[in-house]
Amino acid sequence: MSDRIAYLNGEWVKESEATVSIHDRGFILADAAYEVARTFRRQPFRMERHMARLYSTLRYLAIDPGMDAGAMQDLALEVLERNLPLLGEDGEYRIILRVTRGLNPSSYPVVGAWNAPTILICTTPVAFASFAARYRTGVPVITPSVRRTPPQCLDPRAKTHERLNLILGQLEVAQVDPSAIPLLLDLQGNITESAAANVFFVCDGELWTPSARMVLGGITRETVVELANNLGIPVQEREITLFDAYNAQEAFLTSTSYSVMPVSQINGRPLGDPIPGPVTQALTQAFSDLVGVDIVALASRHLRG
Amino acid sequence: MSDRIAYLNGEWVKESEATVSIHDRGFILADAAYEVARTFRRQPFRMERHMARLYSTLRYLAIDPGMDAGAMQDLALEVLERNLPLLGEDGEYRIILRVTRGLNPSSYPVVGAWNAPTILICTTPVAFASFAARYRTGVPVITPSVRRTPPQCLDPRAKTHERLNLILGQLEVAQVDPSAIPLLLDLQGNITESAAANVFFVCDGELWTPSARMVLGGITRETVVELANNLGIPVQEREITLFDAYNAQEAFLTSTSYSVMPVSQINGRPLGDPIPGPVTQALTQAFSDLVGVDIVALASRHLRG
Amino acid sequence: MSDRIAYLNGEWVKESEATVSIHDRGFILADAAYEVARTFRRQPFRMERHMARLYSTLRYLAIDPGMDAGAMQDLALEVLERNLPLLGEDGEYRIILRVTRGLNPSSYPVVGAWNAPTILICTTPVAFASFAARYRTGVPVITPSVRRTPPQCLDPRAKTHERLNLILGQLEVAQVDPSAIPLLLDLQGNITESAAANVFFVCDGELWTPSARMVLGGITRETVVELANNLGIPVQEREITLFDAYNAQEAFLTSTSYSVMPVSQINGRPLGDPIPGPVTQALTQAFSDLVGVDIVALASRHLRG
Amino acid sequence: MSDRIAYLNGEWVKESEATVSIHDRGFILADAAYEVARTFRRQPFRMERHMARLYSTLRYLAIDPGMDAGAMQDLALEVLERNLPLLGEDGEYRIILRVTRGLNPSSYPVVGAWNAPTILICTTPVAFASFAARYRTGVPVITPSVRRTPPQCLDPRAKTHERLNLILGQLEVAQVDPSAIPLLLDLQGNITESAAANVFFVCDGELWTPSARMVLGGITRETVVELANNLGIPVQEREITLFDAYNAQEAFLTSTSYSVMPVSQINGRPLGDPIPGPVTQALTQAFSDLVGVDIVALASRHLRG
Amino acid sequence: MSDRIAYLNGEWVKESEATVSIHDRGFILADAAYEVARTFRRQPFRMERHMARLYSTLRYLAIDPGMDAGAMQDLALEVLERNLPLLGEDGEYRIILRVTRGLNPSSYPVVGAWNAPTILICTTPVAFASFAARYRTGVPVITPSVRRTPPQCLDPRAKTHERLNLILGQLEVAQVDPSAIPLLLDLQGNITESAAANVFFVCDGELWTPSARMVLGGITRETVVELANNLGIPVQEREITLFDAYNAQEAFLTSTSYSVMPVSQINGRPLGDPIPGPVTQALTQAFSDLVGVDIVALASRHLRG
Amino acid sequence: MSDRIAYLNGEWVKESEATVSIHDRGFILADAAYEVARTFRRQPFRMERHMARLYSTLRYLAIDPGMDAGAMQDLALEVLERNLPLLGEDGEYRIILRVTRGLNPSSYPVVGAWNAPTILICTTPVAFASFAARYRTGVPVITPSVRRTPPQCLDPRAKTHERLNLILGQLEVAQVDPSAIPLLLDLQGNITESAAANVFFVCDGELWTPSARMVLGGITRETVVELANNLGIPVQEREITLFDAYNAQEAFLTSTSYSVMPVSQINGRPLGDPIPGPVTQALTQAFSDLVGVDIVALASRHLRG
Repeated sequence: MSDRIAYLNGEWVKESEATVSIHDRGFILADAAYEVARTFRRQPFRMERHMARLYSTLRYLAIDPGMDAGAMQDLALEVLERNLPLLGEDGEYRIILRVTRGLNPSSYPVVGAWNAPTILICTTPVAFASFAARYRTGVPVITPSVRRTPPQCLDPRAKTHERLNLILGQLEVAQVDPSAIPLLLDLQGNITESAAANVFFVCDGELWTPSARMVLGGITRETVVELANNLGIPVQEREITLFDAYNAQEAFLTSTSYSVMPVSQINGRPLGDPIPGPVTQALTQAFSDLVGVDIVALASRHLRG
Repeated sequence: MSDRIAYLNGEWVKESEATVSIHDRGFILADAAYEVARTFRRQPFRMERHMARLYSTLRYLAIDPGMDAGAMQDLALEVLERNLPLLGEDGEYRIILRVTRGLNPSSYPVVGAWNAPTILICTTPVAFASFAARYRTGVPVITPSVRRTPPQCLDPRAKTHERLNLILGQLEVAQVDPSAIPLLLDLQGNITESAAANVFFVCDGELWTPSARMVLGGITRETVVELANNLGIPVQEREITLFDAYNAQEAFLTSTSYSVMPVSQINGRPLGDPIPGPVTQALTQAFSDLVGVDIVALASRHLRG
Repeated sequence: MSDRIAYLNGEWVKESEATVSIHDRGFILADAAYEVARTFRRQPFRMERHMARLYSTLRYLAIDPGMDAGAMQDLALEVLERNLPLLGEDGEYRIILRVTRGLNPSSYPVVGAWNAPTILICTTPVAFASFAARYRTGVPVITPSVRRTPPQCLDPRAKTHERLNLILGQLEVAQVDPSAIPLLLDLQGNITESAAANVFFVCDGELWTPSARMVLGGITRETVVELANNLGIPVQEREITLFDAYNAQEAFLTSTSYSVMPVSQINGRPLGDPIPGPVTQALTQAFSDLVGVDIVALASRHLRG
Repeated sequence: MSDRIAYLNGEWVKESEATVSIHDRGFILADAAYEVARTFRRQPFRMERHMARLYSTLRYLAIDPGMDAGAMQDLALEVLERNLPLLGEDGEYRIILRVTRGLNPSSYPVVGAWNAPTILICTTPVAFASFAARYRTGVPVITPSVRRTPPQCLDPRAKTHERLNLILGQLEVAQVDPSAIPLLLDLQGNITESAAANVFFVCDGELWTPSARMVLGGITRETVVELANNLGIPVQEREITLFDAYNAQEAFLTSTSYSVMPVSQINGRPLGDPIPGPVTQALTQAFSDLVGVDIVALASRHLRG
Repeated sequence: MSDRIAYLNGEWVKESEATVSIHDRGFILADAAYEVARTFRRQPFRMERHMARLYSTLRYLAIDPGMDAGAMQDLALEVLERNLPLLGEDGEYRIILRVTRGLNPSSYPVVGAWNAPTILICTTPVAFASFAARYRTGVPVITPSVRRTPPQCLDPRAKTHERLNLILGQLEVAQVDPSAIPLLLDLQGNITESAAANVFFVCDGELWTPSARMVLGGITRETVVELANNLGIPVQEREITLFDAYNAQEAFLTSTSYSVMPVSQINGRPLGDPIPGPVTQALTQAFSDLVGVDIVALASRHLRG
Repeated sequence: MSDRIAYLNGEWVKESEATVSIHDRGFILADAAYEVARTFRRQPFRMERHMARLYSTLRYLAIDPGMDAGAMQDLALEVLERNLPLLGEDGEYRIILRVTRGLNPSSYPVVGAWNAPTILICTTPVAFASFAARYRTGVPVITPSVRRTPPQCLDPRAKTHERLNLILGQLEVAQVDPSAIPLLLDLQGNITESAAANVFFVCDGELWTPSARMVLGGITRETVVELANNLGIPVQEREITLFDAYNAQEAFLTSTSYSVMPVSQINGRPLGDPIPGPVTQALTQAFSDLVGVDIVALASRHLRG
């Protein structure tokens, strides 16, 4: 990790020395937007969509980053460019952007008292080794008792530093089964999302995924919907309950890091046999084709590394 | 601000140079507890209660700070001690403690992947000048449309870095009336709290304040309840709606910084005449007696400073 | 106002002397349906649709008006006819129909105790001067904390004398910003409607408007949807939150009186530049074409009056 | 009814000719507060409490009646005084006060556009004959499917012209059993109130009544609580569900008109044997003692009239 | 009833002697799935669909019946076969399947403590005489105050022995009007289903039925949707409130036993004239055509029996 | 188990041969009330309270058992008497009563179609061996994602054959940790109850237990509250969230079978050290004193058996 370069408020700093003030509102108040893109074959993937989403969150938070989305993207590409030489064989980068409302002189949540926004862009290698084996075993999923924060309190579509609601779900699940991924329900009991992933279910030949109203609609999620359309698989955005989940033939998660990841069980009940199921497999293949690399093979090479 | 000393993970650093890693979970995920105490006459006020509350939040978040509450308090007192010489005439300190779950090597919300907690203690002067005049004019209060996050998503009694729900309320209010304080309702329409304050209403000779279930129960709030008991004023913790608020004779906010602050109007409707009303005045007096300093006079001296 | 004629229970009376008994249930219990249509170029606009909506509300309230929709419409047209000579240059009429459950002999809410329904039809000139300037500046919109009454208590699609829920929203907003229009959220935090208007947002080239389930679906709203269809603008009826609103490119209100009115800001945040935005402008033009008069120019002439 | 005198905006008018404009906001928008007191032995009962409640509603609605509660009460007593000579033998009056926000020149719900408030005070004889027989048979009560409007939409404690939610309950019930009284549940399924009455249940020797938060807390209700206290009957304000109701030993309604009225069944299930049950009987007696007249005997004399 | 044969856990027993242990979890805990199909012209109707639905519920309950759907269906057909000789003229059978989690040795709700599942299949004659007359009069429907259990507690789509929520609705309604059918609302006030039937409304030429999310989607319901599609009648699955119901032109129920049954009134309000209305009539005819028997004529023959 | 005698509808039958018809509504519709008492030192414990609770549920369900509570209790005591000779050394009995609405001739949920109620009384030995070891290790508790059915759908205070909601919680938990006990939250996220137990938390020297509104208030729960009162331990019935649970010093369950059972962890977080904690220990002791037998020692003897 040592020598990577990060962009921080107009300066280029070593990532290991990149820090923010203890009075930064992104730190003390979760008052910040962020975004995570990644590379495939060392090329950034759908950066414009990621920028659009970042700026949606900024508008929701009324944070003015002081530059437009194009300038932000140029900066991100430059950060990537500078760090590509440090990337190991078969490595890929996650490109992380953060925009906070800036310093809070009095450490106090008074609107209007802040300075200029803090803008941070850095890259971290995709942690293939941490999930590569799961492409073949699938991940177990558990629905914790904590419910996803509703839109009238803080809109799940905004990608902010407020991740604690999701972490509470993780704590509940991890202390019971450390390998499991939490999948939070909303206040009506509908399935929403995991801490860093969207979920899809294969139900009677269709692909079902929770409505974008109650989840952060990931770029990978969007991409999978497109691929499914290309493959002629009907896709429904809809309310999904545990009744649906227990009756699904397959399920998988999508995220920027692992793209498409099969689910092996939900609340201890096996789901899908084999792992991955045929639809998951077809979409994994289509995703690999789209990005020009076999995503499972690539990750697996890191298991031997 | 320049020369104050902060405690940061076992080291003593200049506050102006105190920073946290961009991979700290308190920064990227709001995954942290904090607490704010203050001094009166340069003595810390009810530190044990503040420590107890900090440790309640830590238990809720399953963060192990690696020391007990007594050791944490000793550290906080040492931070205070070191900074007292820098305090101006009539100055008082806020004592701020923050405990995050620590570094997140992969910048990724996986439970178990973190290092040791980040522990930060610093002091900032009470910003008397920013609120002193309001003791006499009162503050206007507005109920925004955003609702307070419910306990089943993230318990309002936990004092965490997740403050964005409250900030959304501030944004809504501040862009309409920059001088106003937001007072969020819960999902049932009951009054809860402001971003940094509890609220009390004087109704037919009683003191009403929202139930501790839906608010972060401040130490100042507890103190005011004790003082009211001493003065023979009945206190009710209860559900309070706008019907109650509009029919109250007086209202005031309580917070660590300003102790007791009269409210002048709610949603544009005058509330209380004169400002402060007699009950607010009596409690302000009792609070001053308790801490051994006239809190209004003290703050007012900063207006002339 | 002096000489206009109103229809009241089978009689023709001067509007200024038209009154209802203090024991009328429409007065003491909000137990009444009403409807407001208007003229363009002195011709009534879509009266059949207004009649259909009035009779929907009457069926919901189980009030039997004693005549069918055709007879009611004939009466309304006669009221209009009688009053047209009194209309000033460039004037247009609002045609107002009210049907209450009638007298309540005992002033008591006992079902079955009433007499024949009270039927009232009158006309009032469209108050162009009160809103003409806003076509160019847009109106600011605020979401108050009061929530729209849910359908299981009183269906928002029924147009009844119960308008107090909406007025509470107005009071909240007006005392903070007298020029602002309230836009109430429902119990889930979705945007519903204003006291006398529907709302549309322009989002990524589409027109979004709240689902008809939670709002009184106005005839003007229906008309704008038709016009958008004609112009090839996709229209979605859907759940809309503040996240959507803050990210919209334009917004406008529709009502019987002003047809299409641009929104300039929401909760203090500018929305749309220029005012009106291109989609709002195109729909305003299409509406003008449909009704055969430039609605902005017409209203503006009243500013000089 | 012919010759009674009403007070209307500073004038004394025959009640049968007392009317309000068709543009009065109390008529077209339910934008009004009201109150109903009554006499016992031709003396007004607890007028100060009724005035206090009226002014609570006025403050909630931000309607300024232009006079204080004492002046309003004096007017009400004068109305009563003028009409007492018209009262038949064994007659009593209901004293009704209404305060609307006044005329709405444009018939349009724009805040600020109204004139002076409309103030109306009249008296109507208590309709003893309509309920006298029920003191001995009890009234059947049904819980309709429509739910009571929640406080965050319109506070049930405000006594306004918005009664339509309650009337929807009446319609549902009356068309199935014309003799039944509707008892609405709130959104959580707790029993609230009837259209013109509060409800009490006798459960294991205690008196239970819904919390004042979800009901319009009647003066008669207050009085019965006081009487129960005097008789040593414990009283609980609490959440009450149908489980409680079906297990109650007795139930009764309270209202200004009939004071205390036994319930004979709830949703078709007999409740209490004999009618009235002993606690209902004791409270009826205590109420009669308080007001100096046997309320049942008095009403019954009107059956023979 | 005497000589019919039932299948019970691998044995053939007389139905009148078919019993389950008092420790069976289907008895003591409602821990069982069931399904009801029927014959038309003595042939089973859409058994595969019924089997699929049964197995959906079994998966939701994590009950393993120990055989696949094909084997279960074969058994059901054999039960039918054995009992057909006992069927009277014009008779038809309901085919009932029940799968419980089996014996609970300790009579205690501990998961894992059960034995093999209990499997029961029997037939009962369709009770034509109990509903035949209603094809011509229609059934009155009432919405009780009890709400349908929400999916996050127990999914309405699972057909389990938990029917008590629906029975509470029946009790509420039956004690007021013994001839009425209850139609429960959900927690938001939307119409869901009756105890053994789905509901359809004819609204402006379309067929509306509650979304399958909140109801047990019957096979008859599916069939009627198909028939409507064939007839060119648009069908909407949507949220339906009492406002819609009161404004519908017709309504009917569907169930396995009576197929299509007109509704005559809802909450005492007449609905549809004549009975059945034209759309109901057309669908009844189409249904009769599909199953090869005039369902009304067939049932009516049992009235004369 | 072979020779125990059960009472079934007026007859004495061998328990192993005691069965109910496949058409019994308690079996097919969960349409039944039940109750479980137990013996201490072979004497029944608080039978009157159990009978009172059974009859509360019967009244809620409108099931008439055909005998009063005294007669029912006499029958239960006779069942006990007959079976006591069969009880092993150190054995105790659970006394189980079930009252269903009876046979449903048509297997159809039509109210009014049933026969006489089915009354069943039997005894089963307390299964000491299944829980004795846990008195010293405590039980782990998990909050599943499924929520407790709310009172407006089916009142949790009614002890009916509808236990499936609780079993769904068990399934969720058991498939993740087979040794864990589920503790369901209500729709607001408050802790309610386990499938067969109430829960208590020791918080800052007080005993907290969920309000009786949302749980089936057990007789053991009542007894523990009395014992705590005797010991001078303050008891609060209140809303309890996971924040409270994670901050509790101790927790324990109460049920008829095991009386008082320490909790060792909640959602994987240790709770209480040692097990049992001092308050749990004191109440276990007090309970043992009350019933005249050391409940832990008694159970432990079955481990050696």
